Amino acid sequence: MRMLLIHSDYLEFEAKQKTKIAEETDVLKGKMEECLTAFIAVERDDEENPEGVVKGAVEEIEKVAGQLKVNNIVVYPYAHLSSDLSSPEVAKEVLKSIEEELKNKNYNVLRAPFGWYKAFKVSCKGHPLSELSRKIVAKEEKEEKEKTPS
Amino acid sequence: MRMLLIHSDYLEFEAKQKTKIAEETDVLKGKMEECLTAFIAVERDDEENPEGVVKGAVEEIEKVAGQLKVNNIVVYPYAHLSSDLSSPEVAKEVLKSIEEELKNKNYNVLRAPFGWYKAFKVSCKGHPLSELSRKIVAKEEKEEKEKTPS
Ligand SMILES: [Mg+2]
Repeated sequence: MRMLLIHSDYLEFEAKQKTKIAEETDVLKGKMEECLTAFIAVERDDEENPEGVVKGAVEEIEKVAGQLKVNNIVVYPYAHLSSDLSSPEVAKEVLKSIEEELKNKNYNVLRAPFGWYKAFKVSCKGHPLSELSRKIVAKEEKEEKEKTPS
Repeated sequence: MRMLLIHSDYLEFEAKQKTKIAEETDVLKGKMEECLTAFIAVERDDEENPEGVVKGAVEEIEKVAGQLKVNNIVVYPYAHLSSDLSSPEVAKEVLKSIEEELKNKNYNVLRAPFGWYKAFKVSCKGHPLSELSRKIVAKEEKEEKEKTPS
């Protein structure tokens, strides 16, 4: 997973048009202020352990959100961060799980829909921690189904 | 080179703080409207043929600007698009050359300075051509200094 984290004055989006892989959703517009925007590309490698990647992503977002003292998170699908993407199915599952996990931890979360052409406006604050890019790897080993005794 | 092209209602930036590799410049703020914003990461491979990469980049920008019918171009350094960057020296040279070539072709060009922490605001229009990512390769072979007769 590739993630670009932007400490934002605001992030605003409006879904304009579906692509073939568009998620069904009623959330076609949204705006959040004083937020950490996580632009995310789910990658092919992530298919091996989607849960581990969700865990790694949530830990990284929490770490940065803690440093910046923000409680508002935008989860924004951003395929342009990678040239080696996962399937749309895995991407949707991972993005939704990140949203859910962050909500469980009491963050305010706005998630932009996957697979739509979207207009967006973002304002990046510009201090040294306001723009960070990360390669996220799965946070725990997948349990093996069978273990060969050593 | 990695390039992210955003058909923008506006792009606005303000350089806030130097990094160690900051370009000396008087252009610390800028705004352009109805523009094509080219976020660019110059990569290690580009060091082999910077001129060819400039040519490839300018051709791609011209192609998309023509499709969108825009004459305003923002050249915006964006290291976060790659994990395999060129030296800062090559990056600065390439970005400045892209600016010059586009100006020679009568585009209005705003180039954001390299190596500064910058605040920025961007508004992406959201139609299908408003967000494109490209891998740019050198457009012509570097001339060999000596040719071995075959
Ligand atoms: Mg890569």
